[in-house]
Amino acid sequence: MENITNHFRIGLFLILFIVLTFSRSNQVLAQNKSQYIRIAKIMIDAAQLESYKAALKEHAEAAVRKEPGVLTLYAVYDKDNPTHVTVFEIYASVEAYKSHIQTPHFIKYKTTVKDMVKSLVLTDVVPIALETKPK
Amino acid sequence: MENITNHFRIGLFLILFIVLTFSRSNQVLAQNKSQYIRIAKIMIDAAQLESYKAALKEHAEAAVRKEPGVLTLYAVYDKDNPTHVTVFEIYASVEAYKSHIQTPHFIKYKTTVKDMVKSLVLTDVVPIALETKPK
Repeated sequence: MENITNHFRIGLFLILFIVLTFSRSNQVLAQNKSQYIRIAKIMIDAAQLESYKAALKEHAEAAVRKEPGVLTLYAVYDKDNPTHVTVFEIYASVEAYKSHIQTPHFIKYKTTVKDMVKSLVLTDVVPIALETKPK
Repeated sequence: MENITNHFRIGLFLILFIVLTFSRSNQVLAQNKSQYIRIAKIMIDAAQLESYKAALKEHAEAAVRKEPGVLTLYAVYDKDNPTHVTVFEIYASVEAYKSHIQTPHFIKYKTTVKDMVKSLVLTDVVPIALETKPK
C-alpha cells in the first residue's frame, strides 16, 4: 500500500515538473515573439546635423529611461556619410510602440526635427539572433 | 595650528577628489570612443535562407559568449524581404574585431556561408546614442 502511495507521489511530481517546465518556456517564447523590432533610415539636412543629433540623443535617452516598453534605441550615423542616420529599435510589443509615439518626449522630438529630416524609411525586421553582453 | 592642518587636509581631499573624478570620466570616454561599430547588409540566396540563418545564429551566439571584445551582434532580416539580412555589430575596439575574424567560429561561419551570400556591404558607423535596458 505504501509503495503505491510513493509511486503516486512520484508520478504527481513528474507531471507538475513537466507542466511547470513547459509553461515557463512558452512564457519566454511568447515574450520574445511579441517584440517589435525596426530599423529606421533617416537622411538629415547637412546644415542642421548637429542640432538633429542632439535632439535624437535626448529623445533616445528619455524613451529608454522613462518607458518600460522601449528596450533598445541604437542610433548611429555612417562614418563616411554623416547625414545618413540609422536607428535600430526594439520595443517590448507593438502596443509598447503605439504608446511610445504618444509620449510627450516623442512628440517633442518629432516637432523639433520636422524640418531637419529630408527622408525617413522604416523597415520592420524579424530577429535571427539578438546577442549582447550583460551591461 | 590645528586650523591650518584641517585646511591642508580639506585641500588635499579636494585635489584627490578632482583627480579621481577626471581620471574616471576620461577612462569611460576612452572606453566608449574605442568601440568599433558597424552595420553589415547581407543578401542571401533564397534557396539557402534557412541554412544561412542557422549558421548566423550559431556564429553570433558563439562570438558574444566566447569573446570578451564582441559586445553586441543583433542579426535580423527584413519582414517583407527575408533574404535581406542586417547585422548591427559592436566590438570593444578595432583590435577586438581583428581578433574576432581569426577565431575558429568566425572561420567556420565564413566557410559555411560562402556560397549562400550574394552580396555583403559593410558600413562603419559612429554612435549618436546607444540606449538599452539593463539585461
